[in-house]
Amino acid sequence: MTKRELFLYILRKESFLCVGLDTDIKKIPSHLLKEEDPIFAFNKAIIEATKDYCVAYKINLAFYESLGVKGQIALEKTVAYIRKYPDQFIIADAKRGDIGNTSEMYARAFFESAGFDAVTVAPYMGEDSVKPFLGYPEKWVILLALTSNKGSQDFQLMADEQGERLFEKVLKKSQEWATDEQMMYVVGATQAKMLEDIRKIVPNHFLLIPGVGAQGGSLEEVVRYGMNNQCGLLVSSSRQIIYADPTERFAEAARQEARKLQEEMSKYVHIEWMPNAK
Amino acid sequence: MTKRELFLYILRKESFLCVGLDTDIKKIPSHLLKEEDPIFAFNKAIIEATKDYCVAYKINLAFYESLGVKGQIALEKTVAYIRKYPDQFIIADAKRGDIGNTSEMYARAFFESAGFDAVTVAPYMGEDSVKPFLGYPEKWVILLALTSNKGSQDFQLMADEQGERLFEKVLKKSQEWATDEQMMYVVGATQAKMLEDIRKIVPNHFLLIPGVGAQGGSLEEVVRYGMNNQCGLLVSSSRQIIYADPTERFAEAARQEARKLQEEMSKYVHIEWMPNAK
Repeated sequence: MTKRELFLYILRKESFLCVGLDTDIKKIPSHLLKEEDPIFAFNKAIIEATKDYCVAYKINLAFYESLGVKGQIALEKTVAYIRKYPDQFIIADAKRGDIGNTSEMYARAFFESAGFDAVTVAPYMGEDSVKPFLGYPEKWVILLALTSNKGSQDFQLMADEQGERLFEKVLKKSQEWATDEQMMYVVGATQAKMLEDIRKIVPNHFLLIPGVGAQGGSLEEVVRYGMNNQCGLLVSSSRQIIYADPTERFAEAARQEARKLQEEMSKYVHIEWMPNAK
Repeated sequence: MTKRELFLYILRKESFLCVGLDTDIKKIPSHLLKEEDPIFAFNKAIIEATKDYCVAYKINLAFYESLGVKGQIALEKTVAYIRKYPDQFIIADAKRGDIGNTSEMYARAFFESAGFDAVTVAPYMGEDSVKPFLGYPEKWVILLALTSNKGSQDFQLMADEQGERLFEKVLKKSQEWATDEQMMYVVGATQAKMLEDIRKIVPNHFLLIPGVGAQGGSLEEVVRYGMNNQCGLLVSSSRQIIYADPTERFAEAARQEARKLQEEMSKYVHIEWMPNAK
């Protein structure tokens, strides 16, 4: 998917919501456990309930890997199912990054075998660990910059002699590797005020913002400090939507949560952006 | 596996070799492609040929993930096969690291479902991304410190006002999270001279050293700068061993390469270490 296409879907749906499929076999409604593939059955119902209110799905690989082969099967079925809807951007939330020949294999796994549009990548190993993901047209790297968790303070805020922090170095350096047509950044919603600093370095890039909801971030603050004139935001919510109700009503409850977020987002999606979509 | 057990196996085998199973369907001998599970058939033959000369196997997850469900099956069979040999330390080379609830899922995937002894973890997201892997007794985190690739220079060498570099911060800070009984560090062989600096910060920890062979690192240098009085090294070699020969003789060629490395290593494994093993 191109940046322009993503922007058009955002305008059309008046939403920049990304639904996180952190599907945990221990948390899905018990009546689904008698299904042949409970994880996929859950995901399918969630997708059908939320697809009109979101522009992206983020699949958290860990939850599928923890189930071995069964998880891998559920994962592949889920991606194929979302692919039916060409207006959805599909993110592998994988936080990968390794030496060149290995990142090449991960790229093959996510972009060729599984058919994702984007993968989250950790920057610690530098350029040659990120570049292999950039060899696929219209596929995206979403690089970790400033994450939403407490541990983000351990290393990401480290400053050099000039006061430049690690996450700022990541934002600057990585612009040598790809443009805003192939690179986005992860910035946690719990650090919304830092978005001002971040927008000075990456004014045009899309940012993937997790941490709204369960992790305590505020949508209003994220918009205030992070939005640009092509939206520039994908705001991700997982637990708040997919586990909104633990009973047979789970999908309907997920729909309501997604719609509520979409309605709030629609206030910020501006018709005057239309010329930017050309 | 405990640190002491690992050390005893090193003494017994006079080897600190870790064989990397970076098994690529495009590189294995063509006669194996008619097997039902070519990847597993290759791994099994490599394991049988090399097990007497190594103390660890490192499974590079990317190569298996690139094959989807088939890769996952080959991976699980490979780990189960190595488990038959209790003197082998099994590493998931996965470079994971995510927010707490997600790292918990990865820990479950590697330590519960798959039965690995250790997993490589990227430090970028800090303490709460690493801690969930430390909840399993006798299971290990191998944290990225200074990697062997060119991109290691992009961020890992960044220095703060006091001149302390990022990889040094990682080594120091992470000692608050676990002892040398549960934590090791990845240090690339291509940076052997840096091992002197590293040993000042982590004198007692095991270090996993990739990059000997194909990536150009020298075993002699690694030993000179990195060995401690409990060995403290696991030196990993992948392509040089597993792709030593492209024909039906691949396993025999792998055996010879592994033996050659073991013989070189045996010169450095000292009988006077025995008291340290108590």
